[in-house]
Amino acid sequence: MNRFTSIADFNAAFGNMPQPDFAAIEAASARQAELTKPAGSLGRLEEIAIFMAGWQGRPRPKLERLKAAVFAGNHGVAAQGVSAFPIEVTAQMVANFRAGGAAINALAGACGAELAVVPIDLDRPTEDITSDAAMSEADCLEALSIGASVVKPDMDLLFVGEMGIGNTTPASALCAQSYGGSASSWTGRGSGVDDAALARKTQAVEQALALHGPHCDSPFEILRRLGGREIAAMAGAILAARLERVPVLLDGFICCAAIAPLAAALPQFTDHCIAGHCSSEAGHVRLLEALGLDPLIQLNMRLGEGTGAAVAAQIVRSAIAAHESMATFAEAVVAQPS
Amino acid sequence: MNRFTSIADFNAAFGNMPQPDFAAIEAASARQAELTKPAGSLGRLEEIAIFMAGWQGRPRPKLERLKAAVFAGNHGVAAQGVSAFPIEVTAQMVANFRAGGAAINALAGACGAELAVVPIDLDRPTEDITSDAAMSEADCLEALSIGASVVKPDMDLLFVGEMGIGNTTPASALCAQSYGGSASSWTGRGSGVDDAALARKTQAVEQALALHGPHCDSPFEILRRLGGREIAAMAGAILAARLERVPVLLDGFICCAAIAPLAAALPQFTDHCIAGHCSSEAGHVRLLEALGLDPLIQLNMRLGEGTGAAVAAQIVRSAIAAHESMATFAEAVVAQPS
Repeated sequence: MNRFTSIADFNAAFGNMPQPDFAAIEAASARQAELTKPAGSLGRLEEIAIFMAGWQGRPRPKLERLKAAVFAGNHGVAAQGVSAFPIEVTAQMVANFRAGGAAINALAGACGAELAVVPIDLDRPTEDITSDAAMSEADCLEALSIGASVVKPDMDLLFVGEMGIGNTTPASALCAQSYGGSASSWTGRGSGVDDAALARKTQAVEQALALHGPHCDSPFEILRRLGGREIAAMAGAILAARLERVPVLLDGFICCAAIAPLAAALPQFTDHCIAGHCSSEAGHVRLLEALGLDPLIQLNMRLGEGTGAAVAAQIVRSAIAAHESMATFAEAVVAQPS
Repeated sequence: MNRFTSIADFNAAFGNMPQPDFAAIEAASARQAELTKPAGSLGRLEEIAIFMAGWQGRPRPKLERLKAAVFAGNHGVAAQGVSAFPIEVTAQMVANFRAGGAAINALAGACGAELAVVPIDLDRPTEDITSDAAMSEADCLEALSIGASVVKPDMDLLFVGEMGIGNTTPASALCAQSYGGSASSWTGRGSGVDDAALARKTQAVEQALALHGPHCDSPFEILRRLGGREIAAMAGAILAARLERVPVLLDGFICCAAIAPLAAALPQFTDHCIAGHCSSEAGHVRLLEALGLDPLIQLNMRLGEGTGAAVAAQIVRSAIAAHESMATFAEAVVAQPS
């Protein structure tokens, strides 16, 4: 379990979609109706508590074991001048994660998440997707498995983040291949590129789509040809979470793009996911619409690393706290509406 | 200080608008530009950190002394059948707050806020605003002063909430009197009334506006005639916070309506405030637009009690954590964009 040794293995996992515990959902919904508040007045906090109950399989969900995993990878397509930062920054930021100095360290700490930092072959960038498939089958399976390996059945909630200079370019290609639409409609400024670099990004996405599109006949093949190691790892983690019925809080554009090939093929794939935030990266609004997900927050964040999910995790924490510790009308001797 | 002994005293306080510490704002902005992330990529988290620096008067703001105050009051207009709940529920919910069983107890706990519960003369409802001014001058000054008394200069952040069966009716009247527009455009379903009660609410607001409008020649007079004790207390607390340069996180429709008379007269009154959330109460979107404020979250909450602000406070906590503990590019030896 939690390892994909062959494409058949991956396809078998993807074909197995465990469902939430409907009895726990029913019990949690009944509890929400009895708590001392007008029915429905906590809005999405109520929905989140019920969602967590279903995937954790208990009417009173917890948020004690909250795990964040940040995957890092390097991208051959960075050579096309698609990022404002040099490729060395990926490894420098991994060192920063390990030293505790990055945004995700601060924000994982603030929401009480345990943080795993998982660099994948940084000295071996993927192939440039404008001229080759990003990864071999073995490399893609390995990255998926590395992602899956962070998932444990007893986790209360998982979120994943990424670091990879140039990785909004493969992310845009994944979206366009999965959901259609022009390269430019999925391509944005990433960490902050100028107009010339944006034009190069768009062209790189167009070239990659023209080259690989005809061969993208499965979610695996889309991920392998157009993705990247940290992207496949995110997809592997989110898939493994589904197999273990661990709920997932999605981060930004790259995180959502990582599962676009799976969700486009099987929309109910995201049933165990909540969209943490909507980033200001251009394609993310559109991608969330395609995924059918309504983000918890929209704060003009566009950093990646799992930072948007980490902020949103605080809202999940609030939802669980209200569900767990509020009194019922009967307990508090409060009159219900006439 | 923090007491309004006369209308002149209130007007003097309202005429004194301390400004944030611009040196702290500049220093905090400079720090944000040096942290290991693309410039601006934490979006509103960056803005919140800089805002907090300005009002706390230090480049590295804290969130150790976070205070929530929930005021409660009863309303004569409840006799018009404007709520789904009987008036006794106000006192019952105050008992629930004190016993720790309400949503605000759970959510204040989750965000680390110290909670004060302040019922004001629950056995003495305000007058029915459809036929009389809600409060005498003395009662309004007393309620304002009770609100102001919760504010201490060393607070890092304040938010206020309320409980008062029927209080969306005076809140709608305050909005309409302050910003214009029809009674129906500001009136919604509150804790969940049916169509008939909504029609009664709208009519009550219309009657109150017709009766008091010609006499509403100052923010104080609007509050006194159309408000309520817990509403005036919220206004008093938020005004006192400005005098002490304590930043405020606004809650929902009632909280924002409480300051509508002040903000309509002096738009910069809200400079020390962040809109915590946008509730699903009908008038709140419109009121936030009138106030010129962009809410941090929009989660279909409509409970009051300060619950929306309590959830939003977690986002402020994230913003402060990132600002405080992230490494700079120089400290982490990470390359900046070329």
